[in-house]
Amino acid sequence: MYFYREDLINMIVPDKPDPAAAKVMQEILGGRFGEMRTMMQFFFQSSNFRGPAKQFRDLLRGIFLEELAHVELVQTTINQLLNGAGDEGVGASGSDAAPLDDAVKHANPHHFIIGAQASLPVDASGLPWQGTYVYDHGNLISNLLDNLVLESTGVLQKSRIYEMSSNKTFRETLAFLIVRDNAHQNAFAKALETLGVDWAKLFPVPNYDINKYPECRKYVEAGFHNAQFNFRLDSTLIGEIFSGESPSRNGGDLTVTEPPQGYPVPQLPEMPNEHSPGLSDLNR
Amino acid sequence: MYFYREDLINMIVPDKPDPAAAKVMQEILGGRFGEMRTMMQFFFQSSNFRGPAKQFRDLLRGIFLEELAHVELVQTTINQLLNGAGDEGVGASGSDAAPLDDAVKHANPHHFIIGAQASLPVDASGLPWQGTYVYDHGNLISNLLDNLVLESTGVLQKSRIYEMSSNKTFRETLAFLIVRDNAHQNAFAKALETLGVDWAKLFPVPNYDINKYPECRKYVEAGFHNAQFNFRLDSTLIGEIFSGESPSRNGGDLTVTEPPQGYPVPQLPEMPNEHSPGLSDLNR
Amino acid sequence: MYFYREDLINMIVPDKPDPAAAKVMQEILGGRFGEMRTMMQFFFQSSNFRGPAKQFRDLLRGIFLEELAHVELVQTTINQLLNGAGDEGVGASGSDAAPLDDAVKHANPHHFIIGAQASLPVDASGLPWQGTYVYDHGNLISNLLDNLVLESTGVLQKSRIYEMSSNKTFRETLAFLIVRDNAHQNAFAKALETLGVDWAKLFPVPNYDINKYPECRKYVEAGFHNAQFNFRLDSTLIGEIFSGESPSRNGGDLTVTEPPQGYPVPQLPEMPNEHSPGLSDLNR
Amino acid sequence: MYFYREDLINMIVPDKPDPAAAKVMQEILGGRFGEMRTMMQFFFQSSNFRGPAKQFRDLLRGIFLEELAHVELVQTTINQLLNGAGDEGVGASGSDAAPLDDAVKHANPHHFIIGAQASLPVDASGLPWQGTYVYDHGNLISNLLDNLVLESTGVLQKSRIYEMSSNKTFRETLAFLIVRDNAHQNAFAKALETLGVDWAKLFPVPNYDINKYPECRKYVEAGFHNAQFNFRLDSTLIGEIFSGESPSRNGGDLTVTEPPQGYPVPQLPEMPNEHSPGLSDLNR
Amino acid sequence: MYFYREDLINMIVPDKPDPAAAKVMQEILGGRFGEMRTMMQFFFQSSNFRGPAKQFRDLLRGIFLEELAHVELVQTTINQLLNGAGDEGVGASGSDAAPLDDAVKHANPHHFIIGAQASLPVDASGLPWQGTYVYDHGNLISNLLDNLVLESTGVLQKSRIYEMSSNKTFRETLAFLIVRDNAHQNAFAKALETLGVDWAKLFPVPNYDINKYPECRKYVEAGFHNAQFNFRLDSTLIGEIFSGESPSRNGGDLTVTEPPQGYPVPQLPEMPNEHSPGLSDLNR
Amino acid sequence: MYFYREDLINMIVPDKPDPAAAKVMQEILGGRFGEMRTMMQFFFQSSNFRGPAKQFRDLLRGIFLEELAHVELVQTTINQLLNGAGDEGVGASGSDAAPLDDAVKHANPHHFIIGAQASLPVDASGLPWQGTYVYDHGNLISNLLDNLVLESTGVLQKSRIYEMSSNKTFRETLAFLIVRDNAHQNAFAKALETLGVDWAKLFPVPNYDINKYPECRKYVEAGFHNAQFNFRLDSTLIGEIFSGESPSRNGGDLTVTEPPQGYPVPQLPEMPNEHSPGLSDLNR
Repeated sequence: MYFYREDLINMIVPDKPDPAAAKVMQEILGGRFGEMRTMMQFFFQSSNFRGPAKQFRDLLRGIFLEELAHVELVQTTINQLLNGAGDEGVGASGSDAAPLDDAVKHANPHHFIIGAQASLPVDASGLPWQGTYVYDHGNLISNLLDNLVLESTGVLQKSRIYEMSSNKTFRETLAFLIVRDNAHQNAFAKALETLGVDWAKLFPVPNYDINKYPECRKYVEAGFHNAQFNFRLDSTLIGEIFSGESPSRNGGDLTVTEPPQGYPVPQLPEMPNEHSPGLSDLNR
Repeated sequence: MYFYREDLINMIVPDKPDPAAAKVMQEILGGRFGEMRTMMQFFFQSSNFRGPAKQFRDLLRGIFLEELAHVELVQTTINQLLNGAGDEGVGASGSDAAPLDDAVKHANPHHFIIGAQASLPVDASGLPWQGTYVYDHGNLISNLLDNLVLESTGVLQKSRIYEMSSNKTFRETLAFLIVRDNAHQNAFAKALETLGVDWAKLFPVPNYDINKYPECRKYVEAGFHNAQFNFRLDSTLIGEIFSGESPSRNGGDLTVTEPPQGYPVPQLPEMPNEHSPGLSDLNR
Repeated sequence: MYFYREDLINMIVPDKPDPAAAKVMQEILGGRFGEMRTMMQFFFQSSNFRGPAKQFRDLLRGIFLEELAHVELVQTTINQLLNGAGDEGVGASGSDAAPLDDAVKHANPHHFIIGAQASLPVDASGLPWQGTYVYDHGNLISNLLDNLVLESTGVLQKSRIYEMSSNKTFRETLAFLIVRDNAHQNAFAKALETLGVDWAKLFPVPNYDINKYPECRKYVEAGFHNAQFNFRLDSTLIGEIFSGESPSRNGGDLTVTEPPQGYPVPQLPEMPNEHSPGLSDLNR
Repeated sequence: MYFYREDLINMIVPDKPDPAAAKVMQEILGGRFGEMRTMMQFFFQSSNFRGPAKQFRDLLRGIFLEELAHVELVQTTINQLLNGAGDEGVGASGSDAAPLDDAVKHANPHHFIIGAQASLPVDASGLPWQGTYVYDHGNLISNLLDNLVLESTGVLQKSRIYEMSSNKTFRETLAFLIVRDNAHQNAFAKALETLGVDWAKLFPVPNYDINKYPECRKYVEAGFHNAQFNFRLDSTLIGEIFSGESPSRNGGDLTVTEPPQGYPVPQLPEMPNEHSPGLSDLNR
Repeated sequence: MYFYREDLINMIVPDKPDPAAAKVMQEILGGRFGEMRTMMQFFFQSSNFRGPAKQFRDLLRGIFLEELAHVELVQTTINQLLNGAGDEGVGASGSDAAPLDDAVKHANPHHFIIGAQASLPVDASGLPWQGTYVYDHGNLISNLLDNLVLESTGVLQKSRIYEMSSNKTFRETLAFLIVRDNAHQNAFAKALETLGVDWAKLFPVPNYDINKYPECRKYVEAGFHNAQFNFRLDSTLIGEIFSGESPSRNGGDLTVTEPPQGYPVPQLPEMPNEHSPGLSDLNR
Repeated sequence: MYFYREDLINMIVPDKPDPAAAKVMQEILGGRFGEMRTMMQFFFQSSNFRGPAKQFRDLLRGIFLEELAHVELVQTTINQLLNGAGDEGVGASGSDAAPLDDAVKHANPHHFIIGAQASLPVDASGLPWQGTYVYDHGNLISNLLDNLVLESTGVLQKSRIYEMSSNKTFRETLAFLIVRDNAHQNAFAKALETLGVDWAKLFPVPNYDINKYPECRKYVEAGFHNAQFNFRLDSTLIGEIFSGESPSRNGGDLTVTEPPQGYPVPQLPEMPNEHSPGLSDLNR
């Protein structure tokens, strides 16, 4: 069973609205290699796990739990990037004004139509997430290799999207997730090391230069790239795999730690002019 | 952030394998109105919530948390229905035997091909789950009405699927979920009552006769149809809505309670002949 | 604007339930080359029509109107094939009985889960109809050629599906539609003849032998293969194209006629045990 | 059977081409909650109707008939918004000119590629319409609740899209449809009132302020928000439901009336340079 | 079996990057009527061919072989249009620079996220190619008519896309393919002539004016519109159909010829800043 | 450019029709991990290749070429399994006979409706192949790891499907492809070895026991598991990677060889009763 504390896993750094950034950020939420896919893939792999090697099941379940928090972080980031987009006076009159005219030009129009400036289960092209993205091959080694590829696409895509806006809300979330994807890459690479593989200097893939993503530095200094956050209320065997020397060329020791302290969930204002959502509809 | 205790929200009653039942049970997992949809719909509606009426956000988040446990329960039920399907001697020889020949006849062939007899994010027709199923209209009243319809389809579909097999594993899970969908219907109906609606004798929809689903009785006697399980580790305002008289014609009082005690997650055996998953691949 | 008289365009011949036949009949409703596709394709082609050659627009609009009635005929046929499927005692008790167990074996399970034994916008494999099926090339000649192919797939698929059950409800509807697809083939072939093409002995495609489909005979004898039914309440130029010698090797003269007299829409009984639909839910 | 008179249900107000507006208008045609969905949803619900309460079937069929005219109105509006887009000289030479270069920048490129500047069965993101959008739960109460949500999303989305351009062609069609969606909301809310529900002041959802949509005023003054247009050539029981006091907080009496007088369908010019469609291809 | 010589079927003319042109060019690769569809459609039609009239099978197989080379040509064209897009300094620093900010504005964002500025199996709206596009009706005449329509949409769409940019890389590839689609139209039209049809002056569809597409001229002068390139290493009966007078109003004689000499495949530079692909990741 | 010799890459062993086997075999053709996916994935990865390390591009292109022949082999196998399915007398009369009644019971109905008993671009559940299956991450290491997973799913799925029928046509094709997937696994594992990875005893994944698939033995004895067939008409650098000791625990040396001699393509008979395809339609 699943329990919740209303805390985000990382902070939301304030900055101006940027609907074009919100559009590409959707890839990280609902894309083929985004957080919804990793979340659901590890959910299915852990629920469908076969055999007594429970440490691998605990590894999969453990990373799944963090992905839930990642999904919420990315939803919240997108909402922040959308919030307040559009000219003042949205809905304020029936004049010739068309306050969303510019806002939707480089945006995902569904952000302004289906919901009221809010995140969606779609990717950067607006394609809905789909169940075919989830791979569970029913074979431990194939699954571990596949998850390793998946976490490498996480870093690849986030570092490419990072170039698309200098918005601070946008970049902070990307930077945090880049470092965590690196940690999860280490987890799956290490799991394969326990089965005999020697990765030489292959990881991390890609071989990203942390100096290009300055927001990453504090997370690396906090050791987040070599940590596995433990969200279990009962015991877990995850440490049987996630411990000892990192499989990455960057070295260090892998450790299971407490999750971050948590950050407040921002409260989004009502948008009465867009009929969203709130009770004000009833009080007029 | 999300925390986990390795317990199922309801028991898995043992019975024989039944791949045809597993096939239709997929509707409850990955169907248009199944548990993945309710889980993701309430996840998005709560993360995208606007305005200060936090009791509604807590209601949405609270039901989302239970849906996570429902998804795991249905995955586990499907796995149990598939486990051991096929003739003995699967993979045992290269002779003329084709031990899965019969097993796949009325089954979802992907249960035996993509994974190793395990659940998938698809529906009873094998169609992959998709993000278009998630509705978040960005308007509180529309969302509450929509969620009410969704929970009524939950009861409708489960009571229809119940007729498709007398397998005990299958029926126990369906019966538990019918009663819980009734409770969630009460939650959304009550939320609309707080805004002024009087439902008269409309709910529950459909007006199911509990005598036809004898496995339901114990859950109703335990009051599960009028309870909201609380999975929050911090405080919640859910009781501001979910309390007082039930909106259902069946009466009773709504109460927020602790979750069920939890039931053990069954360990699935390895299937070395299907290369699934386990470490045995390495030791031969 | 569109007007309606509650009459089916052809009769529903009574016979026993046959859910396996209902499953394959869905191809004719929601398949890539089914009635929903022809209906929507001709709807878009006529609304998007460019230029002053209004006789072609009237031809497209006219066939679209008949396709609306075809969609309703196929929906009704599927409902008739499903109605009463399943053992007696569906929902009648909570015993070990699983009255839909057999019914869904060769059926589309969604016929029994999503609705209450009723038609769906899907094909024989259960795939949902989609907008990509609609072709409107924005060029009259391409469209006419394309529509000709479409009407030939109509006959091809219906004559193949005809072999899949000897149910009389099923075959009567197929037979009527085979003859009407032949008429629409004649319409588009004739339209291209007015632009100079000589088809020699090419049509109808396929060259079906009417003796194999005895239910067709009465429709051919009534001249339905060379008739265009006129559903316009105002005037139409359709006769400028649809007149004179048939382009088919079977000869005869094309004529615009009144629609058939119409046949009663059968009233489907409530299925209270499947909670469908009716008011009885309220009166218990 | 379905009959047609070549009249639009509302006028097309002339204005300049606006392909960006045409792109977002597609949501109203082919979106998840657009006119194609309401049309097909009510088509299936009425054809699949069970039981003797024919007044509900007539209500569903009656609104379906109007949705057919809405689909044609939106197709025509999109065509008008696209017509003449692009620089002069499209196709006029093989020089360096690229007359569609700007036109497609904020447009749906398929408007210019698949057809010749014409409407498509897709939404504002270019996603094709699909059959999964159609909900027919096989239970009258669920269907009525669901249709009510659907008509509320109609107003929500149209009022949001209204902010995206001040083009007059665009806004007039949206305003007419907002008022008609309000009427259909009243129809389904009233149908549930006949089953005992008291809506208090809940409707319309959203609680839109007519002063913000000045084009709406004349339609409200004509009573279109409380009228059900009757497109039946035979008798109908729709008045058994649609009569008496409106369920909306805005009051008034519900009445079944004749449809609007009808407006001419604009003739689109040929676009010979885009090979669309016309006969001119043959005469060069 | 399939053999390869590393040569493109046409030249890549150098010009500046143009990601907006790359986006619309995707229609020609992965669109409903693009080269992937023609390739796969003719692949299936030739492998599934029934009966002894092997000259038709050879025709289908022969055009399929050319489509393989077309797919590679369009992939390469898109890569060339993307290569170097974005400001200098992509990935060069962690400063406020967001070098892809502008580049993605009118581009397909997936070109910059999923791969490293490279072609994708999607269309101009970013919709993934799908198997439903492939039509094989299992009837020779229907297939020939359908292929004829398909090759006419090829010319239609390419001539419309041609107007969207004056980029030389873009237009040269389009011009070559327009002429080849004309040749394939001649092939299928001729195949139907051998069965008795007289096309009068119908083809080519559309009746494009070569003077508007000056890059086409050299290909017409080389006779490419009336040539079928032979990619068979063994003998073929294709000449039994593709010979004699052209069915096009433009006249000339059809001839089976050697393929073009071939053009070098451009080597794309590594993009180490986008981690793409190369070995440099390992050497830092 | 691509050249062809009409030879299959392996023999078709005759046996009886088996439409249920044809249905599951579709997974190998059009499934998420089937031959169409490997073909298109390696096609895109090789055309989009960046950088001077041409030996990797030649490896990708080389395996792509073999996948083309695999697609044709699987299409032909499915056709053979379908050919002659159905009772005698298909289409032979208009009597009560329904000769396809049984044939479609456990079959993909589209095999009998869309084409005339022929292969389709779909999977074992009838889901159409889609472009989202193709992964090209734009990073060499990610791509190599991904391709390795893909080839391991090839063996996994084929060995599971092997259990579903003892039909000889079916099993021979599966056995050949299992061995070839093993070879391609060796190719990608070896490519990563050249970058420093030591796989220990990990491969092949899964660790299949050749004694369970007796048809495989002859292919292993011929060394097909350690061979790369060369389909290039010009030179290739593939041997720079594919040579030396096998990365598999089964040992042996990798060698680039000539393709197999080739096997005749069976000629499928016409099915005039199903209007497929042939010229006989014209001659009646």
